[in-house]
Amino acid sequence: MTEQWLESLITATPQEGFELALTLSRRGVKYTQPDTEVLKALRHGYANSADGLTAASQVVAINFQTVAAANNYWRGI
Amino acid sequence: MTEQWLESLITATPQEGFELALTLSRRGVKYTQPDTEVLKALRHGYANSADGLTAASQVVAINFQTVAAANNYWRGI
Amino acid sequence: MTEQWLESLITATPQEGFELALTLSRRGVKYTQPDTEVLKALRHGYANSADGLTAASQVVAINFQTVAAANNYWRGI
Amino acid sequence: MTEQWLESLITATPQEGFELALTLSRRGVKYTQPDTEVLKALRHGYANSADGLTAASQVVAINFQTVAAANNYWRGI
Amino acid sequence: MTEQWLESLITATPQEGFELALTLSRRGVKYTQPDTEVLKALRHGYANSADGLTAASQVVAINFQTVAAANNYWRGI
Amino acid sequence: MTEQWLESLITATPQEGFELALTLSRRGVKYTQPDTEVLKALRHGYANSADGLTAASQVVAINFQTVAAANNYWRGI
Repeated sequence: MTEQWLESLITATPQEGFELALTLSRRGVKYTQPDTEVLKALRHGYANSADGLTAASQVVAINFQTVAAANNYWRGI
Repeated sequence: MTEQWLESLITATPQEGFELALTLSRRGVKYTQPDTEVLKALRHGYANSADGLTAASQVVAINFQTVAAANNYWRGI
Repeated sequence: MTEQWLESLITATPQEGFELALTLSRRGVKYTQPDTEVLKALRHGYANSADGLTAASQVVAINFQTVAAANNYWRGI
Repeated sequence: MTEQWLESLITATPQEGFELALTLSRRGVKYTQPDTEVLKALRHGYANSADGLTAASQVVAINFQTVAAANNYWRGI
Repeated sequence: MTEQWLESLITATPQEGFELALTLSRRGVKYTQPDTEVLKALRHGYANSADGLTAASQVVAINFQTVAAANNYWRGI
Repeated sequence: MTEQWLESLITATPQEGFELALTLSRRGVKYTQPDTEVLKALRHGYANSADGLTAASQVVAINFQTVAAANNYWRGI
């Protein structure tokens, strides 16, 4: 995969940081399953499963730890 | 999603920080499943499942690590 | 929820810190399922399930990381 | 529970620290299920389940992060 | 295993760091199951399972925390 | 268990650190199930399960965080 998708962990605001954490979480999936059609088909399943949604939120939480630390928790804002 | 929902990780007290961690956890779900009706329907299921509740509490714990660090653990209080 | 239940992450001893981590873990559950009767009914199930107990212990471990860091690991004791 | 079981996170060696992480993990279980007979009965089950053992090892790993940080990773040894 | 596969945690960019986190995650699997044929056979299964993909993304997120910290979050870029 | 198996978290290289993380993960299992014959029998099962391998890799990732921090991420190499 030579596509450039992540240039920096620094974001202007915490909310942008949270959204970057979402991107990181989805990329973690996409590197394992690059086929967009398969991903779309699977998405319907876990987006309608409480366990699947909680698990997805957990991955976002872990990536948000990284992004928040990188931004020194946006303390200067 | 252009709605502004997260302005800062800084809170006045640890309890407000814990409640912000809850908000982050729910937002992690909502970005994946934005349909409020679907979320309500799923909520009944996991709110009555011990495994589902433990998993939800774990995501809150992870997000609380981030919020607590951002607030330097409210040591000055 | 306007009840005040968390005033500080600082505790006198590591053991009190561990017990605070337990409180945080249970509160993470209670915010999602505030009905005490439902919680009592579920408790019997997971307190008799090895997987449920391990999962509960994991949430405590994550919250204990936060409390221990807040207390600078009680190094001065 | 008024029993005193955790006096300090500081240990003389990394291995003692790892064993303290085991103690923390088991205490996380015991606070939820204090009945020793129930715990013994459950133990047979998860000690013979690969998934149960991996989950137990994960809790130990999380607690070991805390103990290792408390001891500044025993760098002076 | 005497093969040399990890020389440094330092990478030029965050994206290379994320890809290193992927490598670490796969190596964590490969040390347990070194048989490449078995791994290929299993890959089809979890690459088509929403739960399997989320779990894989979580391991990457944890390893990315390590790599990002090692690189001081590429703050100088 | 009086056997000495962990003398230090310091390793010469990142790869040795990763392999130490593997050792920690396996020891976390072995303290719970010390019977080598049982462990061998279980190993076949999870080494052929995608979920089991991902879970094992996650424990390694958590322990690698500890070892990498102990070694200050081998930044001097």
